[in-house]
Amino acid sequence: MTHTAPTALPDLLIALRAALGDAHVLTEGDLSSYEQDWRKRVRGKALAVVRPGNTQEVAAVVKACAKAGVSVVPQGGNTGLVVGSIPDTSGTQVLLSLQRMNAVRAIDADNLTLTVEAGCVLQNVQQAAEQAGFLFPLSLGSEGSCTIGGNLATNAGGTQVVRYGNTRELCLGLEVVTAQGDIMHTLSGLRKDNTGYDLRNLMIGSEGTLGIITAATMKLYPLPAVSLTAWAAVPSVEHAVKLLGLAHQHLGAGLTGFEMMGQFALSLVDKHYPQLRVPLWQDTPYCVLLENSDTESEEHARSRFEYLLELAFEDGCVTDAVVAESLSQARNLWHIRESITLAQAEEGLNIKHDISLPVSAIPSFVANTDALLKREIEGVRIVNFGHLGDGNLHYNVQSPQGSDNKLFLQTQEDRVNTLVYNAVKALGGSISAEHGVGSLKVDTLPDYKDPVALTLMRQVKLALDPQGLLNPGRVVR
Amino acid sequence: MTHTAPTALPDLLIALRAALGDAHVLTEGDLSSYEQDWRKRVRGKALAVVRPGNTQEVAAVVKACAKAGVSVVPQGGNTGLVVGSIPDTSGTQVLLSLQRMNAVRAIDADNLTLTVEAGCVLQNVQQAAEQAGFLFPLSLGSEGSCTIGGNLATNAGGTQVVRYGNTRELCLGLEVVTAQGDIMHTLSGLRKDNTGYDLRNLMIGSEGTLGIITAATMKLYPLPAVSLTAWAAVPSVEHAVKLLGLAHQHLGAGLTGFEMMGQFALSLVDKHYPQLRVPLWQDTPYCVLLENSDTESEEHARSRFEYLLELAFEDGCVTDAVVAESLSQARNLWHIRESITLAQAEEGLNIKHDISLPVSAIPSFVANTDALLKREIEGVRIVNFGHLGDGNLHYNVQSPQGSDNKLFLQTQEDRVNTLVYNAVKALGGSISAEHGVGSLKVDTLPDYKDPVALTLMRQVKLALDPQGLLNPGRVVR
Repeated sequence: MTHTAPTALPDLLIALRAALGDAHVLTEGDLSSYEQDWRKRVRGKALAVVRPGNTQEVAAVVKACAKAGVSVVPQGGNTGLVVGSIPDTSGTQVLLSLQRMNAVRAIDADNLTLTVEAGCVLQNVQQAAEQAGFLFPLSLGSEGSCTIGGNLATNAGGTQVVRYGNTRELCLGLEVVTAQGDIMHTLSGLRKDNTGYDLRNLMIGSEGTLGIITAATMKLYPLPAVSLTAWAAVPSVEHAVKLLGLAHQHLGAGLTGFEMMGQFALSLVDKHYPQLRVPLWQDTPYCVLLENSDTESEEHARSRFEYLLELAFEDGCVTDAVVAESLSQARNLWHIRESITLAQAEEGLNIKHDISLPVSAIPSFVANTDALLKREIEGVRIVNFGHLGDGNLHYNVQSPQGSDNKLFLQTQEDRVNTLVYNAVKALGGSISAEHGVGSLKVDTLPDYKDPVALTLMRQVKLALDPQGLLNPGRVVR
Repeated sequence: MTHTAPTALPDLLIALRAALGDAHVLTEGDLSSYEQDWRKRVRGKALAVVRPGNTQEVAAVVKACAKAGVSVVPQGGNTGLVVGSIPDTSGTQVLLSLQRMNAVRAIDADNLTLTVEAGCVLQNVQQAAEQAGFLFPLSLGSEGSCTIGGNLATNAGGTQVVRYGNTRELCLGLEVVTAQGDIMHTLSGLRKDNTGYDLRNLMIGSEGTLGIITAATMKLYPLPAVSLTAWAAVPSVEHAVKLLGLAHQHLGAGLTGFEMMGQFALSLVDKHYPQLRVPLWQDTPYCVLLENSDTESEEHARSRFEYLLELAFEDGCVTDAVVAESLSQARNLWHIRESITLAQAEEGLNIKHDISLPVSAIPSFVANTDALLKREIEGVRIVNFGHLGDGNLHYNVQSPQGSDNKLFLQTQEDRVNTLVYNAVKALGGSISAEHGVGSLKVDTLPDYKDPVALTLMRQVKLALDPQGLLNPGRVVR
């Protein structure tokens, strides 16, 4: 999709240096933090890494690249999991890092909004909100290095989606540089605006292929008075789903987290991080982590939580449970949940899935797919955990005990993916719930996506980026 | 934009009758309910009114029209306020009514979703949800006749947006017939799905210009245990905004309604519907209606409401307040709020606005625009009310007492619109918060919309509907 005449490249570099200054056009030295993907599966090579400091400079870069017919790969914290933010290996793409654009531009307390530049690290957005007395509820494992621009470009999910939605639902307005290098000034703080097509949501989740998000106005929420965490043993996935229904009914919007973890996933945490003291896992096939946030008081939150758990005991949804007594206990329970990925890595390479299903379909999906995989691959081990409240499972597949991990991945990955994705598709699910498409799934997607939707996606891409210069080869070809 | 050869029309009618049956292709008799807009400002003339009974028939109509080069105007309950769902006066457009497609296809209790056809009346959607034990929270004045497809096509707002969002935020998946007559099967019930561009939100709010929504999967919520309504006198708009902040902080997601009403608006209700007994309005410039929904109990809800109102008294935000003691009292308070539009119509023609602003900008907007209009037009009367919780005001302008209404509208409407919209634009607001663009505002929009956004809108329209046959002349030209 790139149409670069070799002679244009030196001219482009001159133009980029003129626009940004030499210090912010990098072509030499160690560029691995820009060129290597987060999971270290792929390494690219950029023509140059450019670090614009403001929106006008982003626009100037895009215009210069468009003129030269050179493609642009935007990048935030480079923590994506689907190889969507690194250059390809051709050495002809410009890597545009947003990291220098990291200002919190404004907080509007009466409007409950915060306006922030794309390169601001998520944790800094959370802290700016908290310092102003508000909650910015997006929260995910990589929050210490991912950027809000990357969160928007990939419509990141995380652990509080059950209450606050994905990144999409937290955004009110965007500033975007188009493929032509124009600036779309739509940084609105409006909760209602029906003046035309929803370009905001079109840009959100488009992974930098339709425009480059340079700033955003995001929703804030009142800080809850308290958040409590509970850990419950449930006898089956069906019971976890039933518990979720009870929690919705009795906690309402107080339910801010609902995570399910399978016994094998927790056994890996116990094995590799015994100091975390995983509770209740040995005698039950699944555990659930619940969070209840309350605008009133700790006493009130605790009594609502206990009421819910009593009902759940009576209904047989829960066989044992603990409610964290302190913030540090609560943090430890979340830490256990978040350590599954690392524990799994300690155990060895594995085949990862980020799938979603209607919540009602999850029990049968898990039962049938567990059985299918165990039938097809003797001794296979399934690391099943995820955001059950959103129907999102990280349904990962680990090699049989004592087998060769690398060989397993080489020989089984495609086959396992096909088995899992076909099961997902049959139940109306998605093969990428929160991680996106990137280059990792771009060629898999057509097998699982509605063909008319794919056609419309191609038409939109062609309309907004006719030269095909924005992050080519990602999302849709 | 239509390219109809006159000889093609009889062939088209034959094709439509073959596809739908004679009974569902109407060309004679009284078609005014399809051709006349809701506010009775404009009357169009259709080539035919077609009433497909299923998605395949919608697709067949669109294919036949595309072949004949005839444009299609989709219509739900025809309750829109911006002339977006009636044919033009040419007699060459096909009016496609979705009213026969009114089935609730499925309710999934564990997934908290409902799948419904586009022509289902909103009230029937609400009732189907309630019968299954759930809340479908979209609620607006015309809910007895508007359809969910129309709500989606216009991204309708209403009275519970402060808690549950607009129609957009309530939708998880769509079935859509494209401009080419293809069916996009994306009726997903997924809360997380990052497999490509957000075509769902692109279709929502596009007013039938990018595709025809035939069915949708919508979110359900647990029914609250109780909803209480309070009515408070506030000394100023600033105090209303402050009360809103307190309500967010102390009720959290319990705050399901926050409406502000100016004294003149309430005086019209008192004058034309004295039996409604408007409370507190005589001694205060503004009243606020608050709704608190609670998952716990009436006792709990009442104590939280009283706590909030005590704080508000202490802060000086509220000078007097009543909490409805019964459901009928609560309904009466809402009925007063909803009677403002009718009371205003009784008083005479007026100039209507449906604007939104950052909540923080509303006090200065009201102060400055009130003063400006009163300076420019002696004796002008301002009917200011709306969904303050969403920053959405129906800031309407009534002729001076005793003046000629019609003459006022004829001579002042453009001028008043310009004054109001310029003030809105200067504060980062929108000239259409919840009603949409239609044909009413299609030529005004370019003066107030970001030009790059407008360009992108045109590119998207051209990409998805290159023949320009879907609801031409609406949203964007």
